[in-house]
Amino acid sequence: MKQIITISRQFGSGGRTIAKKVAERLGIPFYDKEIIAKICQQSGLSEEFVAENGEYTTSHSQLMFHGYGPNGFSGFSSVNNVYDQLYAIQYGIILDIAAEGPCVILGRCADYVLRDREDCLNVFIHSDMEKRILRAEGYAENKEKNVKKFLIDRDKKRRLYYKYNTDRNWGEAENYDLVLKSSSIGIDACAEIICNAYKNGL
Amino acid sequence: MKQIITISRQFGSGGRTIAKKVAERLGIPFYDKEIIAKICQQSGLSEEFVAENGEYTTSHSQLMFHGYGPNGFSGFSSVNNVYDQLYAIQYGIILDIAAEGPCVILGRCADYVLRDREDCLNVFIHSDMEKRILRAEGYAENKEKNVKKFLIDRDKKRRLYYKYNTDRNWGEAENYDLVLKSSSIGIDACAEIICNAYKNGL
Repeated sequence: MKQIITISRQFGSGGRTIAKKVAERLGIPFYDKEIIAKICQQSGLSEEFVAENGEYTTSHSQLMFHGYGPNGFSGFSSVNNVYDQLYAIQYGIILDIAAEGPCVILGRCADYVLRDREDCLNVFIHSDMEKRILRAEGYAENKEKNVKKFLIDRDKKRRLYYKYNTDRNWGEAENYDLVLKSSSIGIDACAEIICNAYKNGL
Repeated sequence: MKQIITISRQFGSGGRTIAKKVAERLGIPFYDKEIIAKICQQSGLSEEFVAENGEYTTSHSQLMFHGYGPNGFSGFSSVNNVYDQLYAIQYGIILDIAAEGPCVILGRCADYVLRDREDCLNVFIHSDMEKRILRAEGYAENKEKNVKKFLIDRDKKRRLYYKYNTDRNWGEAENYDLVLKSSSIGIDACAEIICNAYKNGL
């Protein structure tokens, strides 16, 4: 029987909407912004900094990625330190949240952080680019942007962040119990499939 | 509305069983061995040769893969020719089958062959290694084999075959509408999810 649902998603895939629906239908807590708030409390970092650097690699950590991991050569560690500290705090918070009981956790490498628990249902949501653009254009912060370029950049930074911290490939089928293309399946049907898999899964 | 279901799968994941169940429940034809028979008819090749080389790369085509594709440098083409001919015949047969109406097609790069049709539901089935070994050990042809080594080899050869012929990565989430881990979800639940997505999909 599954206890925890982790949902990784492409920006603009509707993954957050699906995760919320799943938590509501199952009557279990949904963790997204709450994790950011907890990290801010523990670290003293700003909400903006945590939101940007808790899921996306920066140019600094991209540099580190090319040959230098958190446990590797530490010549640049003073530059990279705050990013690795943020990751370590986030890691601990996700472990604590999962220890409290059933919940849905959005993003933040939670599938990797909880890799030793066999009671996680790990989900990845993606979508075709056309529908991602339509969805992302609706967000206030994206006015006047080249949304397609923005989305491709988000993908790249999320993929690098995930690779750097987990040494896995983001969006590789084998890492997930369920991968759903929301633009083919539909937002509501995605939520239903996840709920059923959680309730009936092996 | 979707018309065609393509199902790619890891050896030992139960993908063939799931594909059969889906076709039965939806009352549409299931193509697996029938494709092999059609290829044998058209090519004069033996059933054994087609079964082995219509989904798996050989040492010859692995050689070609390292820098030489079907349209690339042709210095080795006499060696590779029969494999490329087999792929071309298989390609045409899959197009013909799909043109006839709704059906389920197992493996053979059908997701790629039919990439220009928007009415395909593309599915990938995988499983944890433990359950794959149990399943594969049950097949008569695997008696006295090191089954884990055999499965890893099958994965490698299928991945190379797919890469060589499609220039895509086998099992990469973005290529599929649905990716299901049969060892987490269950064989019957996988079939049900696919049937529902086919009937209700966008």
